Formats: sequence, C-alpha cells, structure tokens
Amino acid sequence: MLFMVRMDVHVPRDLDQDTFEALKATEKVRAQELQRAGKWRHLWRIAGQYANVSIFDVADAGELHDIMLGLPLFPFMTTEVTALCRHPSAIADD
Amino acid sequence: MLFMVRMDVHVPRDLDQDTFEALKATEKVRAQELQRAGKWRHLWRIAGQYANVSIFDVADAGELHDIMLGLPLFPFMTTEVTALCRHPSAIADD
Amino acid sequence: MLFMVRMDVHVPRDLDQDTFEALKATEKVRAQELQRAGKWRHLWRIAGQYANVSIFDVADAGELHDIMLGLPLFPFMTTEVTALCRHPSAIADD
Amino acid sequence: MLFMVRMDVHVPRDLDQDTFEALKATEKVRAQELQRAGKWRHLWRIAGQYANVSIFDVADAGELHDIMLGLPLFPFMTTEVTALCRHPSAIADD
Amino acid sequence: MLFMVRMDVHVPRDLDQDTFEALKATEKVRAQELQRAGKWRHLWRIAGQYANVSIFDVADAGELHDIMLGLPLFPFMTTEVTALCRHPSAIADD
Amino acid sequence: MLFMVRMDVHVPRDLDQDTFEALKATEKVRAQELQRAGKWRHLWRIAGQYANVSIFDVADAGELHDIMLGLPLFPFMTTEVTALCRHPSAIADD
Amino acid sequence: MLFMVRMDVHVPRDLDQDTFEALKATEKVRAQELQRAGKWRHLWRIAGQYANVSIFDVADAGELHDIMLGLPLFPFMTTEVTALCRHPSAIADD
Amino acid sequence: MLFMVRMDVHVPRDLDQDTFEALKATEKVRAQELQRAGKWRHLWRIAGQYANVSIFDVADAGELHDIMLGLPLFPFMTTEVTALCRHPSAIADD
Amino acid sequence: MLFMVRMDVHVPRDLDQDTFEALKATEKVRAQELQRAGKWRHLWRIAGQYANVSIFDVADAGELHDIMLGLPLFPFMTTEVTALCRHPSAIADD
Amino acid sequence: MLFMVRMDVHVPRDLDQDTFEALKATEKVRAQELQRAGKWRHLWRIAGQYANVSIFDVADAGELHDIMLGLPLFPFMTTEVTALCRHPSAIADD
Repeated sequence: MLFMVRMDVHVPRDLDQDTFEALKATEKVRAQELQRAGKWRHLWRIAGQYANVSIFDVADAGELHDIMLGLPLFPFMTTEVTALCRHPSAIADD
Repeated sequence: MLFMVRMDVHVPRDLDQDTFEALKATEKVRAQELQRAGKWRHLWRIAGQYANVSIFDVADAGELHDIMLGLPLFPFMTTEVTALCRHPSAIADD
Repeated sequence: MLFMVRMDVHVPRDLDQDTFEALKATEKVRAQELQRAGKWRHLWRIAGQYANVSIFDVADAGELHDIMLGLPLFPFMTTEVTALCRHPSAIADD
Repeated sequence: MLFMVRMDVHVPRDLDQDTFEALKATEKVRAQELQRAGKWRHLWRIAGQYANVSIFDVADAGELHDIMLGLPLFPFMTTEVTALCRHPSAIADD
Repeated sequence: MLFMVRMDVHVPRDLDQDTFEALKATEKVRAQELQRAGKWRHLWRIAGQYANVSIFDVADAGELHDIMLGLPLFPFMTTEVTALCRHPSAIADD
Repeated sequence: MLFMVRMDVHVPRDLDQDTFEALKATEKVRAQELQRAGKWRHLWRIAGQYANVSIFDVADAGELHDIMLGLPLFPFMTTEVTALCRHPSAIADD
Repeated sequence: MLFMVRMDVHVPRDLDQDTFEALKATEKVRAQELQRAGKWRHLWRIAGQYANVSIFDVADAGELHDIMLGLPLFPFMTTEVTALCRHPSAIADD
Repeated sequence: MLFMVRMDVHVPRDLDQDTFEALKATEKVRAQELQRAGKWRHLWRIAGQYANVSIFDVADAGELHDIMLGLPLFPFMTTEVTALCRHPSAIADD
Repeated sequence: MLFMVRMDVHVPRDLDQDTFEALKATEKVRAQELQRAGKWRHLWRIAGQYANVSIFDVADAGELHDIMLGLPLFPFMTTEVTALCRHPSAIADD
Repeated sequence: MLFMVRMDVHVPRDLDQDTFEALKATEKVRAQELQRAGKWRHLWRIAGQYANVSIFDVADAGELHDIMLGLPLFPFMTTEVTALCRHPSAIADD
C-alpha cells in the first residue's frame, strides 16, 4: 500500500549540535535501510524548507506507523499522511 | 527539475456526461504521452477523493506551466505546486 | 486496513427532489450491503450537519477508493480520509 | 451518547523520560478501564502521528469532560470533540 | 444536554422572495415552539451577519440532529455544533 | 449589550501547581461575583477542552474589556469575542 | 459604542448592470446619510479589493445590526465585525 | 510606493469563449501600457495555476486601487495586496 | 497614505514585570508623540484581547515600517497591515 | 528559473543581542553577494513585519535550497516558496 508523507522538521534551538548531528546521521542510515528494503520508495526535499515529501510502500497503516514512530527525528516532526492508490491513467505499475 | 503537483478535480453538475467522458479520455491520452516522454514521472490517485498527486520532471517551471494549462481537465482543477529537489539521504538518483 | 472517512454532503438546490430521494435510497442500500459485508464497519451521523463519519475495513486504499467513487452521493460530497491502525492501549482487536 | 474525540499528544522535550513513561502507563491502565466499562468504545491510532481518534459512549457531555480532564496525558493534548448520533442507514445499533 | 449551535444562513439569490418569506415565517413559528418547549433555550443574533448562536437543551445529540434537520432554513445553513456542560464556577444551574 | 466570549486556557507547564490553584480560586471568586452582579450571565464549559463559552451583559465593549483584562487567568487565555443582539424570533427578552 | 466592520462585496455575474448601478447609488446615499448622522464614522476602501473597512459609532450591537441588514448591498457581502473600545494610549476621545 | 499583488483568475464556465478572449486581449494591452509607464514593474506567472504575482510602483494605494479596478479581468479575480518597502540589504534601488 | 494595522501583543511569561511596565510606558509616550504628529491617526483597543487596530497616515510603506519596527513592544507583536485609500462614498476627506 | 520566497524571521527572545547582530551582519553580506551574482534578483521588506519577499533566479530548486539553507538566519525563518515563470503579457524578459 502506498502512503505519501510530508515531514516538516522543527529543530529546537536548545538541542546541542552534536546530539542533532548524531540524530541526523542515524536518521540517514535508517532512511537508506528502508529505501533498500523497498519500504521508503521515494524521498524528496521540499525546496527552501526543512521538510521532505516521501512515498512509502508498506503492508498497511500499521507498518507505516511503526516506521514513522521509529525515526530518530520523529519527535521534532509534524507530519501529514495521505493514502494513495493506483491511478487508472498511470502507465507504470507505480 | 522535479515538481509535486496536487490536482483536485471539481466536476460541475451541468457538464453533460458525454463531454466529460471525452475530456477524461483526452486527458488520459495526454497523461500517458507525458509519462512515456518521462515528463510526468509519477501519477497516484488520492484515496477517497477525485484528486491526484503527481511528480513532474521538467526543464523548469515554464514547461510545467504549459503542461498543466494544456491538460483538458485543467479548467476544472484547483492545483498546488511544490518544487522538489534531491534529498541528501535518497539512495536513488530520484 | 482501517480508514476513517468524513463525508459532508452538499445538496445542490436545483437537484429535483425525486432524483435526490432515489439517490439517497440507492445510497442506503449500497451502504447497508457494505456494512453486511464488513467493509463499512461503522457509520455515525455528525449531529447538526448533513455529514457522517465512517470507519471502513478494507484490503487497502484502492478498495476504499472504489467504494467511495461508487457511492451514489459521492458527486455531492467533500471527503476527508484518515488512515488508522491498532492502538497499543486498545483492548478489543478493533 | 456518542462522541468522537481526536487527541493529538504534544510531548514537551524537557519532560524527563521516566515521568513520561509513567504517565503513559497510567494512561493505558485508565484507557483500558474505561474500555472495559464500555465508556471508551473505540480507540484507534492515527497512522504516522502521535494522535488517536476515539469513540466514547457516555451519559452526556459532562461525563465526557470529566473522563477527558482525568486522563494523565490531557495536559499534553489538543482535542477536537464531535457529537455523533445514530445514522438512519446504519444496520448495527452502533 | 446542552449544545451551542452557530447557524450561518446563505440565501441563494434565485430563491424568490415569497418562498423565502414563507420559509422565514415557518422557521420563526418552529423556533418559538421549541423555545416554549424549553428545547431552544437561547437564541441570539450575531451582530452584522445573517447568523445566530443558540443554546439547545435536549436529551442527546440525536434529538438535536432531528431538530436541526427539521428547521425550514436548514438547507440554506452552514452549522457549527459544540457540546457544552456545566462549569464548576457557574452559580446558576444553567 | 451582550457579548459571547470563548476563552481557551493554556496552562504553561512551568507554572507551579500552588500558584495555579490560587489563580483558579481567585478566578472562580471573581467569576461568581460578576455572575451575581448580572454581568457574566452564562458560563458553560466546552466539553473535552480547557475552554469555556460565556455570555456577558455589559454596558459596552469598554466594560467587557476591563472585565476580561481583570480576570486572573487572562494572561493564559486566547479569546474570541462576538457581539450579539436580540433575535427577532427569540421569545424571551434574552 | 465603536465597531469595526470589514465588508467584502461579491457581485454575482448574472446581476444586470442597471440593477447593480442603482443598488450602488442607493448604498452611497444611505452611507452618506449615516456618516452625516455620525453613525458611520469612518469609511475606507481596502486597496486592490472590492472591500471596505468602516468604523461605526452606535448605541449598541442591535443598532449596528439594523444598519448593516438595511444596506442595499448587504445581500452581496461577507462581513467581519470587531467590537472596539477606547485605548488608554489614545490622545483623542476617538 | 511598491505593492506586491497576487491575482488569481477564476474563469466562469458560462463565459463564452469569444468574450473571454477579447477580455484577455484588452487585459494584455492594458498590462503592457502600465508596464511601459513603469507602474506595473514586474509581472510573473505562478507556475501551474491561473494566477500571477506582480509588483506595482505607484504614487499610493489610491492609484493601485484605480489600476486594479480598471483591469478587464478584475471581476474574475481574487487578489492579495502586500505593501513593500526598500530592504536595508538590497543593493539595487529596487 | 493610510494603513490599517492590527497589532496583537503576546507577553512572554518570563518577561519580568518592571521591564514590561517600562516598555509599556515608553510605548505609550511614543504612540502619543506619533498621534500628535498626525502619523498615528486612530488607535482603538480590540475588546477582550491584548490587541489594537490603528490607522496610520504616513508618506509611504517605508515610513510605516520604520514606525512599527521602532515601537518598544514590536518584538512581542504579530501584525497585519492593510493598505487603505479614500472611499468614493466617504463624505469626510478621511 | 525564478522562485518567489517569502521569509518571516522569528527572533527568539533568549538569543543574545550580539550574536543576533553578528548573524544579521553575515546575512547582509551573504545577501548582497548573491544579489551581485544575479541569484537574488529582488529583495523587498514587507511593511510592518519582520519579513521579506524575494525573487531568486537560479538554475533549479536544488540551487535555491542550498542558498536558503545556507542563510545565517534560516534557523529563525518560516518560508513559503512559489515557482514562477514568464508571463505572456510581460514586456521585459523578466
């Protein structure tokens, strides 16, 4: 099942830089793991904002939820989740 | 350049069915042309609404604009355009 | 998979009463079919508004989409779709 | 009387982890008590967000209010309350 | 049970004046019936807008819904419903 | 003159409990004084939220302003003020 | 008592020009009457929009309501009403 | 004085094509006149929408208002006006 | 040129009272200076909120900006600026 | 490619003045570098707010993103990005 998720990251000013760098590094490792596993199918940066839009390909909402709550930067995020499905005009089995 | 575009279609009740079917057919042909040309990279239906979210891969905003204004259903759409760029954590050259 | 869907119905004034009554009757038959099939698990009226909130139990967003687009009153609706999953504190396998 | 309540939980960063774990544990005990008592009829997680949507079956708004204000996590919540009633197309006495 | 309901009336221009006057007259009769029955406890005009805010004292949301859907002007309204309960600082059994 | 005022109270986490209890107690005393004086005509709790909706009967906006700014909890409130007037269908001289 | 009222005028396309010109003329006469009577104290155009912001000096909300509902263009308006009072730093008895 | 104006054009479906083409042509002539006169300093299309963002350089808000109200397509527009001024970091006397 | 400015003041809880009183006093002196100079033409309190709506009569947006940024309470404000111009129905040269 | 970017700056109260002045100075140097390079084509102050609207002329969204994230004041900004393209009525190659 496909979900589009917009993630806006709000970095608190009193989060010390090393902790934040470490969080970002773990987030990147985790994100790339999920991409290689085919779960995190697309990850794009929204230009000019500390935000991304992603497409997840997961079994169901439960799996999406566990992935999201497991992201190191989740506590600093506001998220918007949109359920997607195949479009009749799509040529790819996207 | 990548753009995410959300398109919500509002079908006026007094649009007769044949005209609308013809418009939808032309829209589908046009959408599939653009997909084969690699311009309209992804096209997903938003579940439960007459709306889609798409990813366009175009030279610039000008080309996006011409594509959008040229869609048969454009007069019945409200659209939201978001400029995207590569995310440092993306593994694919997406 | 569970989806919560809010449906607000906007009845155009120039829709003649018989047509509307017929649509409502077909909608009711369809809704009750889906309830008996276990797809449309809950259907509640939002007090004081021509709107309902429903819980669907479907295979995925694709099935939800087909159900929604197939509802006779869909052309008169604005909808909001929220993907749900089991809550760790829920005692029922809800 | 049925109420739908959406609860978004905002965990302040300076709330130490043990206190928060204890609050969550008490919240879970309380939620399950209310579910067994038939007051908290449904509790679902909103996928991808620290939020839930719940259906309460209570005598009136006063009882709902006392339940909500009594939840350990209430001070960290923003809530939306919608009064529901039986839908004429519902087959279950839901 | 108390409900606060805000009702905004949108009068379509092509509704002929006599029909509208008749609707308003029936609405007034109905509103005054409900006030005498103690159901429609307060009815105030919102200054400068074709809108009112009312307090209903009803058995439950079901009764409120039936009252609202039965109002002659309901088809021309957008409504907002808020469930109320006694405030601990209120001196009147309001 | 009648005003409807919605008051949402946001209790900062670092406000120590005793101070807050004292503020609430003074607020209650003040609210009940104003109710007895006929200024604060109605005070209802909004179910499920730390908020109330009130009806004030005052000489003019100036008096309302002084009352509101004088409330002990005012610094923790966001407020919405709506000017009301008699409704032609109201049977009580409300 | 002072009220600030924002009036946005939405001119329906199928309102024939003569009727509209006549309405505007009557509106202007009425507005100038009220200004001379000291009721409509200020009337400014919002630049670039068919809207104005006005300051009314009236006995109470009831009088404001009657003035607004009596304006020829009221049926084509959406309005926002804000109750004002003297500011402690104002030097004029404004 | 500089004003930024966003103009969204909403073309009613029952506006016949010739009238609309004529309006657009007159709008273009007028826009180019104003550009040559230095009043309409910048005019950009918002990608993917029937909208533009423009920068006007006019004596004051009154002149802006007359220009806007005089545009042939104004009756089909919703507009947002923002007053601008020189930025201390701008190198051009923009 | 006329500008309407709405100023909402948000007083941080950790701003000590003396500093705040001093700021308010300087703000009042400055506001009255500007009123006497004819720049700050009207200043009204919005009833029930820590906010005001003001009308400034300045050379242009640049002057408005310098005035606003120079206000002692500006750092605690959110502001909304609306450019105004003479209304054809205004009898005063307002 | 042209982008319009609105930048609202929110200065935290506990940011000490020297650090902030230094940040602003570096921001100014960087902004003027980008303007001389033709990347930051226009920079205007929004009157009465700590915000600016800018027009960037960059290769693509990626370049815009790097510029924005590189601005010293970015951590204190909320931003809105709008992709622009040439307007058929624009006389300048703007």
